[in-house]
Amino acid sequence: MSKDNAIIARILQGDRRALARLISRIENDGRAATDTLAALYPHTGRAHIVGVTGAPGTGKSTLVNELAKSYRARNVQVGIVAVDPSSPFSGGALLGDRIRMRDLSGDPGVFIRSMASRGNLGGLARATSDVVKVLDAAGYETVLVETVGAGQSEVEIARTAHTTLVIEAPGMGDDVQAIKAGVMEIADILVVNKADREGAERTRQILQAMLELGLKPGYGQESKHGARHHSQNQDENRSVTVPAQRWKPIICSTIALQGQGVPELMQAISDHYRYLQESGRWAERERIRAANELDHLLRERLIAHMLQRIGPQRLKETVNRIVARDVDVHTAASDLLAQAGLTSAPS
Amino acid sequence: MSKDNAIIARILQGDRRALARLISRIENDGRAATDTLAALYPHTGRAHIVGVTGAPGTGKSTLVNELAKSYRARNVQVGIVAVDPSSPFSGGALLGDRIRMRDLSGDPGVFIRSMASRGNLGGLARATSDVVKVLDAAGYETVLVETVGAGQSEVEIARTAHTTLVIEAPGMGDDVQAIKAGVMEIADILVVNKADREGAERTRQILQAMLELGLKPGYGQESKHGARHHSQNQDENRSVTVPAQRWKPIICSTIALQGQGVPELMQAISDHYRYLQESGRWAERERIRAANELDHLLRERLIAHMLQRIGPQRLKETVNRIVARDVDVHTAASDLLAQAGLTSAPS
Repeated sequence: MSKDNAIIARILQGDRRALARLISRIENDGRAATDTLAALYPHTGRAHIVGVTGAPGTGKSTLVNELAKSYRARNVQVGIVAVDPSSPFSGGALLGDRIRMRDLSGDPGVFIRSMASRGNLGGLARATSDVVKVLDAAGYETVLVETVGAGQSEVEIARTAHTTLVIEAPGMGDDVQAIKAGVMEIADILVVNKADREGAERTRQILQAMLELGLKPGYGQESKHGARHHSQNQDENRSVTVPAQRWKPIICSTIALQGQGVPELMQAISDHYRYLQESGRWAERERIRAANELDHLLRERLIAHMLQRIGPQRLKETVNRIVARDVDVHTAASDLLAQAGLTSAPS
Repeated sequence: MSKDNAIIARILQGDRRALARLISRIENDGRAATDTLAALYPHTGRAHIVGVTGAPGTGKSTLVNELAKSYRARNVQVGIVAVDPSSPFSGGALLGDRIRMRDLSGDPGVFIRSMASRGNLGGLARATSDVVKVLDAAGYETVLVETVGAGQSEVEIARTAHTTLVIEAPGMGDDVQAIKAGVMEIADILVVNKADREGAERTRQILQAMLELGLKPGYGQESKHGARHHSQNQDENRSVTVPAQRWKPIICSTIALQGQGVPELMQAISDHYRYLQESGRWAERERIRAANELDHLLRERLIAHMLQRIGPQRLKETVNRIVARDVDVHTAASDLLAQAGLTSAPS
């Protein structure tokens, strides 16, 4: 316990080596770090968690890099968690591009960590969420969670964020294909990166049209709402006082490689932060995040428990009986659960 | 029970109305039909289940239509289950295109059913698998399971098939984008549809190259294998006797709208069927299918049981305590499961 207390104290002081070691423990075994996580948890809740997602080739990493530099210029401590569900590699910053490392490494106000699935997507979402909490407790005021790709697992991971940026880029073949269902829905801010490329205006128009068509249902009940350009309505959210007021997704254009549009994007992110705080939606997002995490964890634990109770041998025998048509799968499932003492009588 | 027996007898006789009614019961409530499914299950195991998947716009439905017509020309009874995970609509053949209905409706040797998610993807995979079993028991010798889209849920649904066709088409923007990770892996036969379109040869070459690069790991241990063109090796599988022999994915070219290439595709499907039977892989696939189904069903039941045990009120209170930092999510999950009597002491 005293050893744990020492680790906790070091992490709360922002000790990078303790931080790196705890994150490795979280990655290696979800259960090994639970006591430490429990002790750190009361110290969380201060960080603004910003999710950045989008298809490969949209320039996400460069944009995250630019955002991190902008935060550092304001003396904000920044954590970066780069998540690649398709990669089996994990660790320090193995996935990270060299540009990022060159610009940001050595700065004690930045902590970068790459995470990969190791074949366990559910575990990755859980581990990501735990790592974000550790960075939060360690005093990182903004945590950028970058997910490579644009599938369901990225949507899951993005749900852990307060503010979600979805990055698009023109010239990626089929524009509309790139805007995946499910990904639009989670966007608070849409970014058209590589805005100097041909087709950028068209990409922007498509995004605008999709928003106006209500393809992003947002967080309220109504499906009707429009988009707005940040530059036109910069002050709109400052007057938000009615909790029922909805966030209208902002479209920003950037050229991340040249840093263009990044100040406007920073402004949009801070507008969204202010919106969440003033509208009461921050608390709502915290509740949604907690409910999601609890749900996932309950499932993960319960299923591990079930598999342990039933045991691989009995599972295998049951599969053989199903294949032999001795028993159907529904009856087999009921029997296994009942034998394992995991179900009551059917209602 | 006697009423159930009557339904079972009618379904085994191929009574279409009884069939449609049972399928609706399966769709509406997974639990309502379990007794009937259990009684039908010993009568299953004869149908060849063929999964057809691919991105929207590849001409999947037209191809399924042509395959069904070819089977009918051979006097084979055909069931078609069209699954759309993104659609909330379900029922008779609401999703079905008009061409399909015009060509096939009224033929008593064809049974078409469309299924949609109704917001419950896990339930859809389970229901699809149950519906396929019912069609199998009712005497449909080939069941075509068409999935709209190319995401994870389609991969799940395709796993219920013995033979999986992945449909590609040229000119869909970015060729390589269209070949999704995870979808290539499940392909036994790759179909380049709309083969008269510009870029068809390139699409075929890309698929060929991906296969040669070992991007489709297949069902064995080795990752090294090549593709072959069906026309060149038509007789290869007829001599397959070694159980360890691996299936090398076939690439077929079709123009479904004109029926071109469909006989060769039919041959490829029947070659794969013969391969499965002669190599012993049929039994292996049956085991994999049963294991997957059992796994999903155990999870579904167990989680429903857990949520019922814990109750919505206690869940909500726990979420509030997490948000208030009174308890961390790991501790909360352990406590909830222990209170519900669903976990033993940690090992």
